[in-house]
Amino acid sequence: MQKIRSGTLAALLLGSIVTPALPLGAAPTDVAMIRDAGLKDEVAWQFVEGLSTEVGPRPAGTPQEARAREWAIARLTALGFTNVRAEPYLMPVWQRGREEARILSPFPQNLVVAGLGNSASTPSSGIEGELVYFPTLASLEAAPEASLKGKIAFVDHAMQATQDGSSYGYFGATRRQGPSVASRKGASAILIRSIGTDHHRQPHSGVQMWADGVRPIPAAALSIPDAEQLARILARGKPVRLRLTLLSRMLKDQPSGNVLAEIPGSDPEAGVVVAACHLDSWDQGTGAIDDASGCGIITAAALLVGKAGAPRRTIRLLMAGAEEVGGNGARAYFDAHGKEPHAMAMESDFGADRVWRIDFKLPEGHDALARRLSTGLAPLGIAASRSAAGGGADIEPLVKAGVPVVDLQQDGTRYFDIHHTSDDTLDKIDKAQLQQNVAAWAVALFEIANAPETLAVK
Amino acid sequence: MQKIRSGTLAALLLGSIVTPALPLGAAPTDVAMIRDAGLKDEVAWQFVEGLSTEVGPRPAGTPQEARAREWAIARLTALGFTNVRAEPYLMPVWQRGREEARILSPFPQNLVVAGLGNSASTPSSGIEGELVYFPTLASLEAAPEASLKGKIAFVDHAMQATQDGSSYGYFGATRRQGPSVASRKGASAILIRSIGTDHHRQPHSGVQMWADGVRPIPAAALSIPDAEQLARILARGKPVRLRLTLLSRMLKDQPSGNVLAEIPGSDPEAGVVVAACHLDSWDQGTGAIDDASGCGIITAAALLVGKAGAPRRTIRLLMAGAEEVGGNGARAYFDAHGKEPHAMAMESDFGADRVWRIDFKLPEGHDALARRLSTGLAPLGIAASRSAAGGGADIEPLVKAGVPVVDLQQDGTRYFDIHHTSDDTLDKIDKAQLQQNVAAWAVALFEIANAPETLAVK
Repeated sequence: MQKIRSGTLAALLLGSIVTPALPLGAAPTDVAMIRDAGLKDEVAWQFVEGLSTEVGPRPAGTPQEARAREWAIARLTALGFTNVRAEPYLMPVWQRGREEARILSPFPQNLVVAGLGNSASTPSSGIEGELVYFPTLASLEAAPEASLKGKIAFVDHAMQATQDGSSYGYFGATRRQGPSVASRKGASAILIRSIGTDHHRQPHSGVQMWADGVRPIPAAALSIPDAEQLARILARGKPVRLRLTLLSRMLKDQPSGNVLAEIPGSDPEAGVVVAACHLDSWDQGTGAIDDASGCGIITAAALLVGKAGAPRRTIRLLMAGAEEVGGNGARAYFDAHGKEPHAMAMESDFGADRVWRIDFKLPEGHDALARRLSTGLAPLGIAASRSAAGGGADIEPLVKAGVPVVDLQQDGTRYFDIHHTSDDTLDKIDKAQLQQNVAAWAVALFEIANAPETLAVK
Repeated sequence: MQKIRSGTLAALLLGSIVTPALPLGAAPTDVAMIRDAGLKDEVAWQFVEGLSTEVGPRPAGTPQEARAREWAIARLTALGFTNVRAEPYLMPVWQRGREEARILSPFPQNLVVAGLGNSASTPSSGIEGELVYFPTLASLEAAPEASLKGKIAFVDHAMQATQDGSSYGYFGATRRQGPSVASRKGASAILIRSIGTDHHRQPHSGVQMWADGVRPIPAAALSIPDAEQLARILARGKPVRLRLTLLSRMLKDQPSGNVLAEIPGSDPEAGVVVAACHLDSWDQGTGAIDDASGCGIITAAALLVGKAGAPRRTIRLLMAGAEEVGGNGARAYFDAHGKEPHAMAMESDFGADRVWRIDFKLPEGHDALARRLSTGLAPLGIAASRSAAGGGADIEPLVKAGVPVVDLQQDGTRYFDIHHTSDDTLDKIDKAQLQQNVAAWAVALFEIANAPETLAVK
């Protein structure tokens, strides 16, 4: 309650001496203490270390994901959270099997591949075909109808890294839409250059959904060195034949679920603040950066806010299931809780590197809250932007329903070196940057959970 | 011949004005021209690009290695070399099959492994056992006899990078001797932390030889992130059970061979200068840094020397087969040619990063040659050392027989990030550093092949 009073008081101090241009939020000593505690936090690291070590890979709808829920419930309970529980649902599961790509001619050799989510399975003896080169998705789209009949399309678009990860949208279209486009043109299979920015022989895979009416075909990503090798071989100008073996199967109605945990607030009318991450991982790595780190960050930050005294609003951790394969957990949460008053939704799902920017999507008239957040985050090297916050996949239904959202944008420069590869392991986490995330989240959750303004949307 | 006269002349110019402390070798303009041409060389890059792309992986004694010989013969002939030929021999071949390591308890998950050369095969259903942790090879050696009966030893020694690669000798003992030691203690299998310095999920494998009388057991390397994961799991203090599937087979009398090519010299009595590399690669990568780059460097450098006019001594390229599995090519060369007069042996087999040091092992009284080499290399940032040159695996029999040797030491800081992993691909080659190697080798071969001194050992 003290925090709320401080916040209320500070909201009146327009033109404060300390930072003339920005009114202060909670008394600086409170926010500063929370921020400093975040920078020394051990809870997030222990969460990431524990989940990625003791569970490891945890694909949606598998026994490993179920173990992740058990693990998270035990850990959150031990940390003192309230209302810790799993909320189960059923879902279909695509399961990877044996995978091999072999150039048969002119230069016989194996290439490293990984099937894309929902790829069709080949027969166990594989399929063979001649490759057709496309530098971009646009060039594949421009290919004449039926021109790829019996052939294997290869789309070689090279992703470039950006600090904010925005290139994933542009380049990622090759993974998301390429397989459906190739199938429509009659291709027997599609290979894509991994949507990634490293140079290791670890393909970046990920889910793709077949467009309506499209026949599923085998679809896989080549590691970037393998894509470059294939491009060099094709550049020799001789026909290139390849045998592709991609085994997989679809399972119906497998158990998945979300894990929820709360720091109870004092004012039920003020609405819930949702802090989201996802518990499942893509199958190839141990999900350290995607997204054990997000779950560790929100856990540690909520705990710091709770330790400062009961906040005005309930902070609810949503550790979603099945983010990687289409957002089943997000939909299940919204179905169960979408009608409760939500004051704010936030998500941490972009690795563990430092937060560098804050974006807002607040209702009209909440500039003061935005300024308090900016002021609290500035000492961490975080600047406010004019970009609208968009949230993450696990809060997408809430954001679409009009719940206010704040994004703490992380540095994504090296995120796509690792994302959705077997290399997503604990050693990629920089603890100091993880702690900076905790500090930023603790400041944000503290200010938002205690904000005197009306935020909740019914 | 002009070069030889220059060299002879320069050898008399003790106390030269240009570099008072060091007598000059060939007239500076000659060496400088060759050096400058090396820095602009395209031949080495084209060699590495071609061999690693058009052949790719080329394990010793396989059809791929045979394709590498055909490829090299065609390329060397096209470049104008003389006496280009393969010299065949037969050898046994260890062939990798399916490989999987799965932790069964307490935290079920797969680990990424690669069998070590000459590993015993498990049954196709694998073997199961409890793990026993050893931080170092010394601690494994200290384990009581028979104490590992039915268990799987895990040796977790973490290699550190050094510029000169010297840590490979120290840490590499775990790979070379660990399997025999574990077998003697009764272990059913051994896992080692990869002998490498990266953090990618690509195990570093390589050959190991069973000590006399030792029963072969399954032996594999874990990638470094996987070794760290296993160490964290073991640190929890619960028994860790693992199922290891490592399939492999041994083939007898498979064809392998060396490829030789020459720049003919004018003085047959002056002895041959051997410039060596190896054509085979470890099976996991495409052998770009190990050792297509070495073959490209010696090819380009010898060509530059030849273009400057016939040297006094014949320069013979030895592109050895089967370096990776025990030096069968080196022995075959020595058996066939060891009695010919050899003036010098050199080898390039440590990647494509820049040369930073020159080491010598010359007969008494050849300080002037050493100084000419030092002077010619200094503009490339290469300093002479007081360490004795040791040569490489493919010239080891020559060096043991007393042939003089010079080492152009390459920067190995990042070599063991890549060596003997699937990541040994073209994209790891820095062309500018490759060209610096060509320049250094061209200077060295020019000075050595044209040296007026008597060097040949019968």
